[in-house]
Order: sequence, then C-alpha cells, then structure tokens
Amino acid sequence: MEKPLNIAIAGLGTIGGGTLKIIRENASLLKERSGREIRLVAVLDRDRKKLERLKLEGVAFVESPKVLAAMPEVDVIVELMGGAEGAAKELVESALKAGKHVVTANKALIAHHGVALAKLAEKSGKVLAYEAAVAGGIPIIKSLREGLAANHFSKIAGILNGTCNFILTSMKQEHKDFGEALKEAQQRGFAEADPSFDIDGVDTAHKLAILTSLAYGVQPDIDAVYVEGIRNITIPDIEFADQLGFIIKLLGISQRVESKILQRVHPCMVGKDTALGRVSGAYNGIIVEGSSVGRITFEGRGAGEGPTASAVVADIMDIARGAYYRPFTIAAEHLKKAQFSDMDSLRTSYYLRLSVADKPGVLAAITGVFSKEGISVDSFLQHPPKSGETAQVVITTHETVELHMRHAIKSIAALDSVTEPPHMIRMENL
Amino acid sequence: MEKPLNIAIAGLGTIGGGTLKIIRENASLLKERSGREIRLVAVLDRDRKKLERLKLEGVAFVESPKVLAAMPEVDVIVELMGGAEGAAKELVESALKAGKHVVTANKALIAHHGVALAKLAEKSGKVLAYEAAVAGGIPIIKSLREGLAANHFSKIAGILNGTCNFILTSMKQEHKDFGEALKEAQQRGFAEADPSFDIDGVDTAHKLAILTSLAYGVQPDIDAVYVEGIRNITIPDIEFADQLGFIIKLLGISQRVESKILQRVHPCMVGKDTALGRVSGAYNGIIVEGSSVGRITFEGRGAGEGPTASAVVADIMDIARGAYYRPFTIAAEHLKKAQFSDMDSLRTSYYLRLSVADKPGVLAAITGVFSKEGISVDSFLQHPPKSGETAQVVITTHETVELHMRHAIKSIAALDSVTEPPHMIRMENL
Repeated sequence: MEKPLNIAIAGLGTIGGGTLKIIRENASLLKERSGREIRLVAVLDRDRKKLERLKLEGVAFVESPKVLAAMPEVDVIVELMGGAEGAAKELVESALKAGKHVVTANKALIAHHGVALAKLAEKSGKVLAYEAAVAGGIPIIKSLREGLAANHFSKIAGILNGTCNFILTSMKQEHKDFGEALKEAQQRGFAEADPSFDIDGVDTAHKLAILTSLAYGVQPDIDAVYVEGIRNITIPDIEFADQLGFIIKLLGISQRVESKILQRVHPCMVGKDTALGRVSGAYNGIIVEGSSVGRITFEGRGAGEGPTASAVVADIMDIARGAYYRPFTIAAEHLKKAQFSDMDSLRTSYYLRLSVADKPGVLAAITGVFSKEGISVDSFLQHPPKSGETAQVVITTHETVELHMRHAIKSIAALDSVTEPPHMIRMENL
Repeated sequence: MEKPLNIAIAGLGTIGGGTLKIIRENASLLKERSGREIRLVAVLDRDRKKLERLKLEGVAFVESPKVLAAMPEVDVIVELMGGAEGAAKELVESALKAGKHVVTANKALIAHHGVALAKLAEKSGKVLAYEAAVAGGIPIIKSLREGLAANHFSKIAGILNGTCNFILTSMKQEHKDFGEALKEAQQRGFAEADPSFDIDGVDTAHKLAILTSLAYGVQPDIDAVYVEGIRNITIPDIEFADQLGFIIKLLGISQRVESKILQRVHPCMVGKDTALGRVSGAYNGIIVEGSSVGRITFEGRGAGEGPTASAVVADIMDIARGAYYRPFTIAAEHLKKAQFSDMDSLRTSYYLRLSVADKPGVLAAITGVFSKEGISVDSFLQHPPKSGETAQVVITTHETVELHMRHAIKSIAALDSVTEPPHMIRMENL
C-alpha cells in the first residue's frame, strides 16, 4: 500500500462539508478503490470555529492561500471557495506553481482562466481537475475527456442549472408564476439570495463554455455565449407549450455549424417525452452527439452537497491512483481560438405568443409579415379574449433563420393591433 | 510527442472493422487527445483476404494467439474475437503474461475469467480494459470505476441488451408477436441467427455480473444471476401493461439486500414515463444509485459497430495517455466472494394475467388464494370473453415477497376454472 495522499480543503461551505463527510465516512472504500489513504491535513476558511465544529483535531488551519499552497506536506489542494478572481484564483495559481495537484468545483475560474491554469498544470505535470464544476455528480467532464474521446462531437445540449429547472418545473406543475417559484426555490435552498447568476443564464453559460472547450478542442470563451435567462417565462407560455406537446427548459447548447461553433443559452421548447423534456426539478440532463457513439444521454442531480462532493472526491481518487491527464484533454497551447457562429444565423423553429386586438384584419397583417420574411407557419392557434378585447394568438413556425425571425418579430410588434411585446421561445428538436 | 502506441487487433468482424475505421479516420484527433499516435501493427483473423480488403499493407497477419501475444513490437492487444473460452481466452492470458496491455469487448470472458485475468494484469502492472463489454458506447465501466467511485452503490438497473429492447419495442409499437419481431430483428442485423444468448437473458446476465462486481467489490458470479428471458412475453401482456401505464422491458438488476446481493434478469413492467421506460429500440439505459450522488441515468446505443468501437478506442486512448487502473477497481485478490440473496426473498409488486372460465365463483377462488398467502391486491381488471368462454383477468399486487407469490401462482394455476398457465411479470418501481 502506498503512502497516504495528503489533501487540503479550501472553503468549508456546503461542498467542502460534503467532501469532508465522504472522506470520513467512506475512508476504507476510498482506500480500497484508489489504493491509497486520503488524508486531510489542512483547511483554509474564514471561520476558525469550524475546526472545532467539524472536529478537525490535528488538521492545520490556514488563512492565507499563499501559505496553504506552499505547505510541503500537501499533495492536493481542493479549492471550494468559488469566484473567478480573488482568493480562489490566487490559491489555484500558487498551488499549481508550487507543483501541487488541484481539484476545484469552480466553473467561473475554469471558464475564465482555465487555459492559463492548464498551462501551469501541464508545466509541472500535475492534475487540474474540475469534474464538479459542471452538472454536479454527472461524470460529464470525464466522459468527454476519456470515455467518449474517440469521437468527433457535433452537438452538446444540456439542462445545466438545477435552480432554473426547479423553478420551471414548479411553474409547470404547481402553476406558480416566476416570482413565486423563485421564492420557493430560495426558501428550499435551491436558489441564492441574489439569484441572477442562475436565472439569467450566466451559470449555464460558464458550464457550456467549459463543455465546448472539451468537446471541440478550443479555448473556453464565455463572452461568445449568447445568453437569455428565464425571467420572462410566463404561465401562459408554459400552458400553450403543454397544449402543443412541449415543455420549456433552460438549455445550454453548443453545436458545430460548418467550421464554426455556436454557443447559446436560452429557454427552449422541447418535446415533453424527450430525454431532456423529462428532466425535472433540480436534476440536470445532458445530450452529447458523437461521430461513432451517436447520441448519449446523462441525467442526475446537478447540484447540492452530495452530488457535487461525489465529483470532487472522484477527482481526488483519480489523483490517488496516479492518473494524469491534461485539463482540456489536448495540450493547452494547442487549444484553438474558436470561430464562433453568430446567433442571427441559427436555424430553428419558433414559438410566438401575441396579444392582439380582437378585430378584423389582424391575422392578415401578422401572416403578411411572416410571408414577407419568407417564414413558413407550422401551427396557428387563436384563443378568444377571456376578458377585455385582447385575444391570444400562438404561432409556431417551421425551421427558419433567427435573423428573419428577429425582423418578423420587430415588424409584428410595431403593428397597431398587437398590444403587448411578443413572447418568443425557440423550439429545439432534440 | 511520445513514441507511437502499437496495437494489434484480434478479430476483424464488425467491432474490429469499426475500431479500424476510427483509428484511421480520427487518427489526428486521437493523437491530439491522447498524446500519442495509435498505430496498428498486427492483426489476427481467420481470413487472410481481409488484409487486402481492408487495405492493411504493412500490417503483420498472424493466425496464432500465442504468436500474436509474443510479438515484441506490440504494446496493446485488442481482443475482439468473443467467447469465454478458446482462442480469445488463450490470447488474453498469454498477452497479459507477456506484459501487454489488453483491451477487450468480451463480456463472457470477463464474467467467467475476469478475476484470474485481473490478477495477471495486476502482476505485470498492465491494463485489462473492457468498457465495450457492457452497454456499447455508454461509459458505464469507467463511471463505476472512476467517475462515481466515491459512492457506495445500492442498486444498478439497466436495459443492457439492445436485441431484446428492439424486439419488445417493435412488439409494442407495431403489434408484432414475439416470433415476427424476432425475425425482423434478425433481418435488420439486431439479432443473431441463434438468438438464444440475447433473448433468453444470458447476455444481460453476463453484463450484470460485471457491473455487480465493479459496484460492490465482489467476484463476478454469473451462476448467481436469476435469469428469465423474453420468449414468453405476449401482445396481450404488452397491451394490458400499457393500459396500466407501464411498459415491459428486459432488465438486469443488481441490488444490495442487507449484507447480501440480489442479481436478477427478467422482464419487468416499468412506468412508461420513467427513465428506463423511455429507452426504446436498440438503445441501452442504466440507472445507478449511489450514496452521495443519488440517482444517475445513462442512455445510449448499446451495440453495433460505431458505439462499441467508440468504447474500444477510448480504452486504447487511456492506455496511450498512460492511465493505469486495476480491472475491477479494487485489487483482484481483495474481491470478495459475495453472499447472494435468494430470488424467493425478492420484495416487489406483481402483474398476473389469467385466462379463466366465465362462471360464478372464479374470482372468489382467486382472491381467496391471495388472501391465504397474505398478498394484497392493488388492481383488478376483468375483461369479458371476446370469443368462447374464457375471460381475461389482470391482477396487480402491492409489494409482496416472491416466495408467497410463487405459492399463490401455483395454487391459482391448479384451480379448475383457470384454463391456461398464469402469465406473471414483475413490476419495478424505478
């Protein structure tokens, strides 16, 4: 039996606590499977009282990232503080420079500074592992990097944010409006006090940029992700979707479009009975299209203490086994700067809900706009006004180009008889 | 850049051809991702003409496993001949003894001789990899061994045989009886000329024994798998299942029952809208329950050239990267002989279809049997006779013990008014 693998955990929050729990409760299992004892020798946290609360006798308490990174007895730094800059970045950089392995759950750090950090890791021949950064307990990073590595990838589509999926599921199942569903998510610990990172799609964009990098061998580029969140999703849209056989999900989609890559995060209508349509509550789901393997689907809990810590500890066990791999599969210096395709060139189908005055000529005006833009209508539903004089018109289109659709929406919104800004949701055939 | 990794492929059938195709077509991708060129230096096959047909100039053609295993220039033997004994076993044994890495898609070999082969591999510090042996392109072996390794596992349930799933799907969707659906599967290349290995559940049992071993750290034991195939599934059962909200799938299930393990392969009724209920056609699906990660679901093509070769090449790329792991995660000598739970102790719900004479007292007799065995009935459907005097009675039970159910079925079958052997299908709440 080899000597123990000494780890330090920086950040004793939810994930840090979960990691500690697994390392303690499953100690003999981890040793049996990885071949080495995994031993916690140091922690970094703002709150020294956690040493006692978590019964960490004999474990060094450190407050400075630089000091932690330099501790000679530490083999692996487990960074669970979060944030793309500041202490987390300082710690990971200094640890890699000091020749330590690093395990992190920090998607913002990897999405923004992954390439520079990967170069440091490759220079010292150490591992920079981040399975926990994307889709919680689902081993998607390992699958792209290793299990599916024989494939050229053409598309990745996923429900990557459990908070949004929880909110959309509760809007659908309990007929809550967005505000109520968000409040419930916050009360149940599925959403932060400041939820914008999740509900505006930023978190999904970070994760998507990482998956794009792994899948296509390019530098992660969060700025090249088109992002739209779920704030504007309404109960009527959810109900019309249901009538049409669809369900609304926030998806992150990364696809090859000829020699370019299109990255987008936005609400999508997907078939109710499809693999992603079925992913409910705080679960995540990911579809990967590979040249030889075809379509592979993964589903599991995307966040929370247990699933995320499961991924963190798996990364630690890989290191204990002596596994070595480059952070983005291919050498960091070979990661190309991708050519990104413009959102205007997207080809897909669209759902449009319009509030219109209930008078003659309205439909002719709307269909005239579609005709002018060369957009072919797939279905047309008119619901008579419930009260007042506004009728609801729901239109779905055949596949068309986003640019044309954008022009059509602009023209339709300008019609006198259209009384509210149109609600548009893209439809995804997955 | 390191020197090329020299491989030899034994068996140039469907999977061998697919492997060759990926290695050729994706050569630069594989090199970029794994860090080394993967070079085919020798093949073993019965048919020397394949050298020319597959344009294998400069590749050595070998007919003897022993000779191939001894070739000094070969780093990795890729065994794609199949069969638990004979040439495949001889090749893998001699290759491991000669200090070569081995990649195989041979589930029968691993299920029957995996422990002995793992000991050879561990002795020489080489890799024995078999991702392609279970669930085609789905990286389930790697996920259990690495990605989910921080978890104690409590249950694995899967659709592991694409042939059976294709047949059951076509019986359901096209109302074909078993014989017609089997014939179609054979015509479309989804079933062998002798289909018994697939349709009698033997193939699923092999795969399940391997998953059990990896999940619980025990020796694979194919003889300890309860096995029932799909030959007796009828259209009426498929239709009644549908009415009840279920669908019939051949599942392999391995679960912890206290300190024991229960392994079983049999047709199951699962909810139509569940993760496994949705897996159709030649696809495979697997659910894994882990202590920290919770439930993870995988879905993908379970067989065929592309998906299986994708798994074979991923294993080769791991070796090219310098990955080392023990074949069953824990050291082969530490694999325990499991205590297996008896099928009679299974607790689940049951579906029973009876053909009964349409006369008074029949139902009282049947319900009397259930009552005597302490089995609680959940639903009861009686369909009047379509022709003649036989009515169909469909009963589902609450959860009960298999032994009691077995006694009940025996007593019911013996009733005068029951005109055909009862059709029993277990129901699985997944």
